Amino acid sequence: MASSKVVIVGTGMVGMSYAYSMINQGTAEEIVLIDINKERALGEAMDLNHGLSYAPRKMKIYAGEYSDCKDADIVVITAGVSQKDGETRLDLLNRNAKIIKSVVTEIMKSGFNGIILVASNPVDILTYVAWKSSGLPTSKVFGSGTALDTARLRYEIADKINISVKNIHAYIMGEHGDSEFVCWSNAYVGAKPIVDVIESMEQITFNDLDKIYNNVKNAAYEIIKRKNATYYGIGMTLVSITNAILSNENRIIPISAYNGGAYNIPSDLYIGLPAVLNRDGVHHVVNLKLSIHEQQQLVKSATTLKELLDKMEF
Amino acid sequence: MASSKVVIVGTGMVGMSYAYSMINQGTAEEIVLIDINKERALGEAMDLNHGLSYAPRKMKIYAGEYSDCKDADIVVITAGVSQKDGETRLDLLNRNAKIIKSVVTEIMKSGFNGIILVASNPVDILTYVAWKSSGLPTSKVFGSGTALDTARLRYEIADKINISVKNIHAYIMGEHGDSEFVCWSNAYVGAKPIVDVIESMEQITFNDLDKIYNNVKNAAYEIIKRKNATYYGIGMTLVSITNAILSNENRIIPISAYNGGAYNIPSDLYIGLPAVLNRDGVHHVVNLKLSIHEQQQLVKSATTLKELLDKMEF
Amino acid sequence: MASSKVVIVGTGMVGMSYAYSMINQGTAEEIVLIDINKERALGEAMDLNHGLSYAPRKMKIYAGEYSDCKDADIVVITAGVSQKDGETRLDLLNRNAKIIKSVVTEIMKSGFNGIILVASNPVDILTYVAWKSSGLPTSKVFGSGTALDTARLRYEIADKINISVKNIHAYIMGEHGDSEFVCWSNAYVGAKPIVDVIESMEQITFNDLDKIYNNVKNAAYEIIKRKNATYYGIGMTLVSITNAILSNENRIIPISAYNGGAYNIPSDLYIGLPAVLNRDGVHHVVNLKLSIHEQQQLVKSATTLKELLDKMEF
Amino acid sequence: MASSKVVIVGTGMVGMSYAYSMINQGTAEEIVLIDINKERALGEAMDLNHGLSYAPRKMKIYAGEYSDCKDADIVVITAGVSQKDGETRLDLLNRNAKIIKSVVTEIMKSGFNGIILVASNPVDILTYVAWKSSGLPTSKVFGSGTALDTARLRYEIADKINISVKNIHAYIMGEHGDSEFVCWSNAYVGAKPIVDVIESMEQITFNDLDKIYNNVKNAAYEIIKRKNATYYGIGMTLVSITNAILSNENRIIPISAYNGGAYNIPSDLYIGLPAVLNRDGVHHVVNLKLSIHEQQQLVKSATTLKELLDKMEF
Repeated sequence: MASSKVVIVGTGMVGMSYAYSMINQGTAEEIVLIDINKERALGEAMDLNHGLSYAPRKMKIYAGEYSDCKDADIVVITAGVSQKDGETRLDLLNRNAKIIKSVVTEIMKSGFNGIILVASNPVDILTYVAWKSSGLPTSKVFGSGTALDTARLRYEIADKINISVKNIHAYIMGEHGDSEFVCWSNAYVGAKPIVDVIESMEQITFNDLDKIYNNVKNAAYEIIKRKNATYYGIGMTLVSITNAILSNENRIIPISAYNGGAYNIPSDLYIGLPAVLNRDGVHHVVNLKLSIHEQQQLVKSATTLKELLDKMEF
Repeated sequence: MASSKVVIVGTGMVGMSYAYSMINQGTAEEIVLIDINKERALGEAMDLNHGLSYAPRKMKIYAGEYSDCKDADIVVITAGVSQKDGETRLDLLNRNAKIIKSVVTEIMKSGFNGIILVASNPVDILTYVAWKSSGLPTSKVFGSGTALDTARLRYEIADKINISVKNIHAYIMGEHGDSEFVCWSNAYVGAKPIVDVIESMEQITFNDLDKIYNNVKNAAYEIIKRKNATYYGIGMTLVSITNAILSNENRIIPISAYNGGAYNIPSDLYIGLPAVLNRDGVHHVVNLKLSIHEQQQLVKSATTLKELLDKMEF
Repeated sequence: MASSKVVIVGTGMVGMSYAYSMINQGTAEEIVLIDINKERALGEAMDLNHGLSYAPRKMKIYAGEYSDCKDADIVVITAGVSQKDGETRLDLLNRNAKIIKSVVTEIMKSGFNGIILVASNPVDILTYVAWKSSGLPTSKVFGSGTALDTARLRYEIADKINISVKNIHAYIMGEHGDSEFVCWSNAYVGAKPIVDVIESMEQITFNDLDKIYNNVKNAAYEIIKRKNATYYGIGMTLVSITNAILSNENRIIPISAYNGGAYNIPSDLYIGLPAVLNRDGVHHVVNLKLSIHEQQQLVKSATTLKELLDKMEF
Repeated sequence: MASSKVVIVGTGMVGMSYAYSMINQGTAEEIVLIDINKERALGEAMDLNHGLSYAPRKMKIYAGEYSDCKDADIVVITAGVSQKDGETRLDLLNRNAKIIKSVVTEIMKSGFNGIILVASNPVDILTYVAWKSSGLPTSKVFGSGTALDTARLRYEIADKINISVKNIHAYIMGEHGDSEFVCWSNAYVGAKPIVDVIESMEQITFNDLDKIYNNVKNAAYEIIKRKNATYYGIGMTLVSITNAILSNENRIIPISAYNGGAYNIPSDLYIGLPAVLNRDGVHHVVNLKLSIHEQQQLVKSATTLKELLDKMEF
């Protein structure tokens, strides 16, 4: 019978915004919070539980242990550390990779056989680490990738042309980072190509598309400048991915997916690509026809990630 | 402050399925039922009210009078009569036109200044009649048009290729009737053209597109054969249109819109076209680039409607 | 992982209103329609499926067979026949009992091990028949009982005193029929006894309580007089019971529960009593302290049912 | 037509958890964030907007000015400062009172004529300050009071006896602080008095009631010890109050209400009492019959508040 269990590793603001969003939407029946600071996880569980009186459905929320992953449907990893003074980016990356590896090792020890969703950054690299450490098939391990960037893109377009965000169909692809790009050649408003929209609407020009791309790429930077961190957008993005899985939706969402050869880019890496998600994880990656420029951007993005992976130790 | 009032004229199965769907989804705050059989409307209101204990939000539901339209946001017309023995289709049409005219006259007498949504069939013709009788601008009067046909289309495609219906973006256009057609040249799965989908997926071929079109066109016939009428699909379709209006969504839905010259077809008629809907009604009709064949189909469909309008008396 | 399957036996207006309500609320993942008129079930499934484009979640809906009950969580029985000319009420009852028995026999043959919820009338009697025919424990077989009557009661009180129906806590108990009664001694508005409410509010007097009781008892009659049948209220009531089960809510709802000795009334029968419902069915019947008059009413109601059961053959 | 606008003053964790909860539940159409740190409000609006792609309905969210209060339905005040080294509690209170006074003065300058909901602590005192500064009737100004404490109480009882929190009807009354108390004499599980529940259930004893009360009273302390602040529970509590207002629910929620003489306690103060809330604010305070002990507790709580008010300058 219907029962859904989500474990969150890492009760920082991203993990907790995700948990809070699930409680408000009634996404899962059971939510387990794991943190190296067990008292913190306990406090968070208490705070969430006090909202249950006003929640849309019955839920069970508690601070748990890795052994609670045993029968979980999804484990979402938001754990990670930030840069120390004098630490190189590669050193930081290696340190986070070791954390993810140790987290995944603990998860797998429980007998877990569900889906691992990684949200820790840099997400494409750490998802690869999580997959390698898990022994699970690639379909069962993926990252949040460019799902949040895509949400930002859709919001920016919707806001610009004053059409419902539900009617904006477009993806950010590639690395969740500086080399990401918009696949404008496959971007639609309702069932109308964005190029045709620009022709027919005065509100939007080709110049605006560049501005929108830059807004999306700089969004995290602009938010962090003002509030030190970003967590609400990613929280709801993770819930959307969770719904696609738990409700077996076969929904297309751009996530950090394993690339084993599609798209003619370096293989054996994780990168932001649109994929069909259901209760078994990634059903398949959606193969879009890219423009020559977009193909180049994807190759460049994949190469960046590949080089980083090659330098790493974990 | 937030208050939304919907009046339903006609408490047959279509009107009531729409009302029941709204109660289950918590769409509007106030629902008024009007029927020439006042006792019927009373009985329906009682039956609906008994569900309120288990509804998602507070609502006020009652059998009312045309004077209740005064401050309504939307009046949905589902009234109409069916063919008598020996009656020609044109006679039937004229009879229904007179009913719509008299209904709209009553609505307008109340001082109503909201949106009229027509669901009575043949919807494109009767929406024209409603508009003419109302004195309202064309943006404020429209019909359900091919919104239901489009829902059927999206369901059929989703079912065939096993992708979430939320990712199917395609429209049925033209008359809500035999001359309707699929705008395949602007049909997408996620942000991927349907032509590319057919190339990349084994589950679907160009032959399947024909089958899907035929299934959609014959859907009402197939359902009526088995249960005498269709009402659940249209009920939820009307709720979706209602949400686009009440929540000011700027959502694109193919509805029966007034055509004043767009699309190079006979003008001064209502026909199924994708349109942006918000709290002011039809914000604008979306102009798609059609293939030559699709343009011919639209002209033919418009011509059919125009000829019918020319023959009518109301 | 989260998956919920509901089978509906009988696609009359009650079964279909229940199905339509579930689709609008996104209650279950899979809904199967079974009817002796297989074509009717097919037509109903088609009509429902066309609403899926606008539904809150992905669902699978189809016309099925008894073998589909095998892995169902809940089977809801709404089947039944109506009185023939010259047929006595007892003859009709025996005929319906035979139908229920044969339906349950078919359900159990599939290997079904879930919960049977009976909505066919007279519900207390037919639930007993279903239980006897099933071989399942009493916790797994129950009827809609006075859940609808209670919804009506709460609506009537809320309407009278202009307080949210969510704050009305009171039950109709006993037979779903003429001998049912309100347990006024345990009736509250928020956390305030109804007696205190009457003292402090001008809107309501003890006379009003009688009127409300009569309105509830006559509700079905008043609705049937106007629209031939009642189905929307019961549809949403059944969804509420379904949610309590699927979401493992431990929710208190008055349903037709097996009485094995509680309440000092004749035992080995089904009768309307408040019960705690979760995914295992009836967790326990709630034992209320009744007033002497209420206890007499319950005994009378139970006796009526017992005498009927004793006369029956099935 | 349906349009609802909520302004939040103070974008700390309480204000933002409230905003995030509203976006996840689709509570209001327009949300305005005001903070003395305008950049912070801007960053928060950006983060929230990125979740809109995955939100249940269209919303407009932005950082604004006090002039945006003009046509708002509700302004929620969460602003306030914390204790400085060496500052007495009374000095801190006077400082916060001045902030609230200045905030309310700015709100009223806009021409605002809606409802002010205060969540800043000490809430009972600061709500009084807000009311005095506003010139609005007492029905239009109230505080979150013991609504969160009541949510905690209901959660604790539900958890203890394993019954749905939706079936727990009981209130925390008095000051939102140390002198608050449970009104056990009017506490129910479903429609069963808690005293009868204790008699009939092995899981709970009178000792447990004391433990539950202490857990509730110490909840904030226990959470703050572990995560420095509490915000998720209050966020959802404020949404529940907002829904009662925007949907005109006539819902009973214990909030900080103006007491003009009811309950035989010192008057001209705000204190936690159950009240009926609708779109006009507080329709009326619910008068419960208290036990002698509860009445003493309420008097003591009111006296504490009264004495504090008398000492203050603002």
